[in-house]
Amino acid sequence: MDKKSSHGQWQQVEEDIAEDILTGRLSPMTQLPKEADLMERFGVGRHTIRRAISSLENRGLVQVEQGRGTFVRDGRLDYRISERTRFSQNLLDQGREPLGQAVREEEVPASAAVAEALRLPRGEPVYHIVRRGFADDEPVSFSDAYYPVRRFPGFDKARLSGRSVSLILAEYGVPDYIRLRTDILTRMPTPEEARQLGQGMSQPVIISKKVDVDMKGTPIAYSETVWAGERIQFSVDNTSQLLDVLAKGKET
Amino acid sequence: MDKKSSHGQWQQVEEDIAEDILTGRLSPMTQLPKEADLMERFGVGRHTIRRAISSLENRGLVQVEQGRGTFVRDGRLDYRISERTRFSQNLLDQGREPLGQAVREEEVPASAAVAEALRLPRGEPVYHIVRRGFADDEPVSFSDAYYPVRRFPGFDKARLSGRSVSLILAEYGVPDYIRLRTDILTRMPTPEEARQLGQGMSQPVIISKKVDVDMKGTPIAYSETVWAGERIQFSVDNTSQLLDVLAKGKET
Repeated sequence: MDKKSSHGQWQQVEEDIAEDILTGRLSPMTQLPKEADLMERFGVGRHTIRRAISSLENRGLVQVEQGRGTFVRDGRLDYRISERTRFSQNLLDQGREPLGQAVREEEVPASAAVAEALRLPRGEPVYHIVRRGFADDEPVSFSDAYYPVRRFPGFDKARLSGRSVSLILAEYGVPDYIRLRTDILTRMPTPEEARQLGQGMSQPVIISKKVDVDMKGTPIAYSETVWAGERIQFSVDNTSQLLDVLAKGKET
Repeated sequence: MDKKSSHGQWQQVEEDIAEDILTGRLSPMTQLPKEADLMERFGVGRHTIRRAISSLENRGLVQVEQGRGTFVRDGRLDYRISERTRFSQNLLDQGREPLGQAVREEEVPASAAVAEALRLPRGEPVYHIVRRGFADDEPVSFSDAYYPVRRFPGFDKARLSGRSVSLILAEYGVPDYIRLRTDILTRMPTPEEARQLGQGMSQPVIISKKVDVDMKGTPIAYSETVWAGERIQFSVDNTSQLLDVLAKGKET
């Protein structure tokens, strides 16, 4: 029965089901058809179906619940972009457990892009800190962050201690900061990005580039973060701006 | 000399150069190496290089300037997301000529997602309006927009007239509106999306879903727009929130 199973075949089954999920034809929490029905629909053996489902589970698109069946996962992580965006709080707000993992640190001269973002002379020393972010033990982000060395000497070591960026910045006399600008774009992953994010090379990543400033408007951090494209969406909420407008409308 | 040219070959050359551009190894405005150098680097004939370059030009990644050479295009369209986002103004701000094209209109019962976004009962009639957006005659967006029929009877016909959404809404007694929420995500394109956007099936699209509300906070429009992933980036600017915070800091 499993003789038909081949590399190309299970991948085709996987892609067909993935497309149903990603386009919304299969809604979150829906149960996938039973193995026998999938075998009939695709005209393939049990082994092929199991391999496709296993790969979908690795991609975070479905969840296999022993004895109950296979279910479409409850959608993407909803990552809110605002002037107060903080990775850990964002995940906690959605009932996901955040975790950060140091990958490497180095001191480098600022490239043109980093210098422009941090408003430093090109070549000025910056800490380059590479980290992975996890939600419930699943990798979701892979980031390159840059901090000015002169302003925050020893920041790289402090970051290795496990304390949050907010806490460390407070120790350097920056009690609060604001996300000034975020750029969001998409492209296909590099092999390292796919590996770090535990995703396939045939699915895109989504990239956020951001500048944080202190309460005087001086840039203190720039970062480029690559996110698993299938597992996240960003949201921008303008409710507070709407409330401002409504309040002004009542004044006049 | 051109005997080596084959389907697989020019595509490989195209993909290698595209990756250099998309990862930033080749910066915007940089000149590509000369034909002879590319022939040597890739070990292929002139025809293969020309076919790859022609395809990169179609994708909007390079610009061939007769007599001068081939240059990396000046980056992605920078589409600003704010409470005041308007397609035409956004493009004009960057010196790009906006154009909208009607694809189709229909009256349909609101799906669960549309009903929730517009805060209508499920099945309530809505206009479903499909359009393409262009920047300088290049397709950049393909959108599905939904408007409540009861509140805006005849909106579908008005939209065909070529007038802007802002102008038409004003005629219905909505002089101003605000973008309340925007979700941004990525996935691979469907064949129709790739065709409408003039892009390949091997490059991702980036999707924005938004809700607009009138000045009382009532939803008036919901839309899902698919953008050519290679040719656009979104930006969220919190300068105004920073200025608010700075102003409050001075008050206290």
